[in-house]
Amino acid sequence: MSFCFDLVQTDGRARAGALRTSHGTIQTPAFMPVGTQATVKAIPPRDLEELGAQIILANTYHLYLRPGDELVARRGGLHRFMAWPHPILTDSGGFQVFSLSEMRRIDDDGVTFKSHLDGSMHRFTPEKAIRIQENLGADIVMCFDECPPPTDREYNIIALRRTHAWAARCRRAHARSDQALFGITQGGVFRDLREQSARFLTSLDFPGYAIGGLAVGEDKADMFQVIAWMDEVLPTAKPRYLMGVGEPTDLVRAVQRGVDMADCVLPTRLARHGAAFTRDGRINMRNRAYAEDERPIDPECDCYACRHFSRAYIRHLLQVGEILGMYLMSIHNTAFLLNLMREVRAAIIQGQFEAFAQAWLSRYERTSSLQPGKTPTHL
Amino acid sequence: MSFCFDLVQTDGRARAGALRTSHGTIQTPAFMPVGTQATVKAIPPRDLEELGAQIILANTYHLYLRPGDELVARRGGLHRFMAWPHPILTDSGGFQVFSLSEMRRIDDDGVTFKSHLDGSMHRFTPEKAIRIQENLGADIVMCFDECPPPTDREYNIIALRRTHAWAARCRRAHARSDQALFGITQGGVFRDLREQSARFLTSLDFPGYAIGGLAVGEDKADMFQVIAWMDEVLPTAKPRYLMGVGEPTDLVRAVQRGVDMADCVLPTRLARHGAAFTRDGRINMRNRAYAEDERPIDPECDCYACRHFSRAYIRHLLQVGEILGMYLMSIHNTAFLLNLMREVRAAIIQGQFEAFAQAWLSRYERTSSLQPGKTPTHL
Repeated sequence: MSFCFDLVQTDGRARAGALRTSHGTIQTPAFMPVGTQATVKAIPPRDLEELGAQIILANTYHLYLRPGDELVARRGGLHRFMAWPHPILTDSGGFQVFSLSEMRRIDDDGVTFKSHLDGSMHRFTPEKAIRIQENLGADIVMCFDECPPPTDREYNIIALRRTHAWAARCRRAHARSDQALFGITQGGVFRDLREQSARFLTSLDFPGYAIGGLAVGEDKADMFQVIAWMDEVLPTAKPRYLMGVGEPTDLVRAVQRGVDMADCVLPTRLARHGAAFTRDGRINMRNRAYAEDERPIDPECDCYACRHFSRAYIRHLLQVGEILGMYLMSIHNTAFLLNLMREVRAAIIQGQFEAFAQAWLSRYERTSSLQPGKTPTHL
Repeated sequence: MSFCFDLVQTDGRARAGALRTSHGTIQTPAFMPVGTQATVKAIPPRDLEELGAQIILANTYHLYLRPGDELVARRGGLHRFMAWPHPILTDSGGFQVFSLSEMRRIDDDGVTFKSHLDGSMHRFTPEKAIRIQENLGADIVMCFDECPPPTDREYNIIALRRTHAWAARCRRAHARSDQALFGITQGGVFRDLREQSARFLTSLDFPGYAIGGLAVGEDKADMFQVIAWMDEVLPTAKPRYLMGVGEPTDLVRAVQRGVDMADCVLPTRLARHGAAFTRDGRINMRNRAYAEDERPIDPECDCYACRHFSRAYIRHLLQVGEILGMYLMSIHNTAFLLNLMREVRAAIIQGQFEAFAQAWLSRYERTSSLQPGKTPTHL
C-alpha cells in the first residue's frame, strides 16, 4: 500500500499531518488547486511547483467527456498526460453530474444524464466512476455519491441510502492498489444523517473521508456546524477532506474544526474576474483606485506576480482583457491560499494555531475605509 | 548617444550586427515579438527572457487609448510599467490609425480619427505621435507615417509627400536623447517612389530606417522586390527594420535581402488559433491526427512547451479552450522564430547563410502527405 497518513501534531482540533502517496507527500492541512480539465486554469505546471502546490485536483466528469478517460489511459495516465509528476486527486464526477448536466435520471443503480457540451446521453454507475478514475490514474480517487440540496431532509434520507450503497460498490469495484479511495459523507445539514453517514463509511474502512454536500448555498453557520460534528465521529487517524471550500476565512475555520484537505476553483475563478486575495481582505483589482497604484497586489506576498508587477499594470491588463492579467492574478490567488495553509501548518506545529487564527481572521475581515476596492465576499 | 549599430559580418546581402540601446544590445538579424497592449499576448516577461527575446514592440495607438501614455509616464515609463527591463520599440500609431480606427480624416497636418473602442474622437500629428512615444519611453521610436494601399500609385504619391514632411517634423519634435528615432520608407510597390523615399529619409540622417507599407496584402514577389530595392539605397551602416513580417520563410528571405529587424503578431496570433510552426512547416494542432500524438509540437525545439508537453495534451487544451493551451502554443511559436533568427545569424557569421537558407526553406516548404495537420500558409 503506497498510501498512508501520519498525524504529526494536533493543536485544539486543528491537525498537522503528512499524507504519503505514490507520487509524493502532501503536508496537511493542504489546499488543493483545481485543474478541472487537466490544467489549473491559466497556471503552467512549473509555476504550480514554484508556488509549492503539492497536489492538484482533476474532474472525472469533464475528462470523461473530453478528451476521454481511455485516451488519457492510453497516453500513460493523467500524471504523464498533463506533465504533473506530483500527487493528483480526481473527484467522482457525482457533483458535476448533479450540477452541470442538462438532464439527469437517478435510479438505485446509477445516473443517466445528458452532456452539458453536446446533449449526448451518458450513464455513470459507481463501477463506471471507479473505472474512469482508474483510467485517469490519480493518487486519490473518490466514491461516486449523490449530492442533494443540503436542507431537504426527505431527499437527503433517500440520497444517503443510495450514496452508502454506492460507496460499498465503489469499494468492491476499486482494484488499483496505487490509488487511495476516499469515502464521501453526505446527509445535508442534519446531524443524525451526517453521523449515520460517517459511521457507515467508517465501517467500510476507507483510507480517507471527505465531507461532501457543503459549500453549496447553505448558511456558513450550518456548514461549520456539520464540519464540527464530523470531527467528532470521523476516525482521527484518517485524513478528512472538505470538498469545494476555498474562501480563505472558511479554510482557517475548517482547519479549526479538524479538516486536513480542501479544494476549490475559487482562487483561479476570482482571478479571472479581477478579484484578488490580500491579507487585508479581498480587493477588486479593476477598481479605478488602483489605476496608478505602484504596490503589488499584496505587499506581503512573495509570488511572481507580487515580486515584479504593480497593481496599476495588472489593472491595465485586466481592463484590456489580456491573458497575462488572468495569469498573474491566478498565480497570486493560488499562492495566497498555499501560503496561508503553510502558515496554518506552522502555527499548529508550534502549538499557536488559535492565536494565529484569531489574528489572521481579524485582519482579513476588518473592513476599512482605506480599501476602496474591497469586494463583498459573496462575489 | 546611447544608441549605435555595428555591422559585425555580411554574407551576400545578409547582415549580422549588434544594435546597442539604453536597455541592452540586440543581436541582429532579430525577430521582435509584439506586445500590443504592453504585454506579448499570453507570454509572461520571464518566459520571454528564457526564450531569448532581446527586444519587444508595443503599440502607441493602443497604449495612448488604454491606459494612456501619460499614466505610463507617471508610472516611470513602459519598461518599468510592464516590468521589462530590456529594449522596447514603439510604433508610431500610424498603421493602427489607418487600419483600426472607425473613421479618419487626413490632412497635411495630421489625422483625426475615431477610437475603435468607444467612438471618441482623437487627433494624431507627427508632434503628438512623438510626444506619446516620449511618454512611453521606448528605446526605439518610429516616425508618424501614412500607410496607403501599396498598389495605388496616385495615392502613394500624395501620401509619400505627407510621410516625408511628417518625418522631418518628427525629427525636429523628438528630444529624448536616450531614444533612437527611426524613419519609415513608404512608396508602395513603386521603385521610383521607394527610392525617392529612401533618399529623402537618408538625407534626414536617422539612426535607423524601417521599410513600411508592406505585408499588407500585396504579392510576395512585390514585397521581396521592394526589400531588394531598399537594400541598394539604404545606408549600409544603419539598421533596416521590416515592419509587420513574421512568416518564417519571409523572415529568411528578408534577411537574404539585407533586413536586420522584423516584427509581427503572427506567432502569438496563430498560437491562439491553434497553428504551430515546425521545421517541417506549419501544422494545425487541433487536427484529429494529433489527438494521441506523444511527440512535442516540434521534436527539434527546446522550448518549455516542447520539453514537457505532448501534441495530444496541447490539442486537448486547445479543444477545450484552456488558457494553458494558448500559453504553450505562444511560447513555442515565439521560440521558433527567435531560434530561427539565432541560427540565421550564426550561419551569416560562418559565411554559410545561403546554404543554410536553401536547406531551411526547402525543408519548411516541402509538402508531405505524412503531415495531416499541415495548414495553408495564408491562415
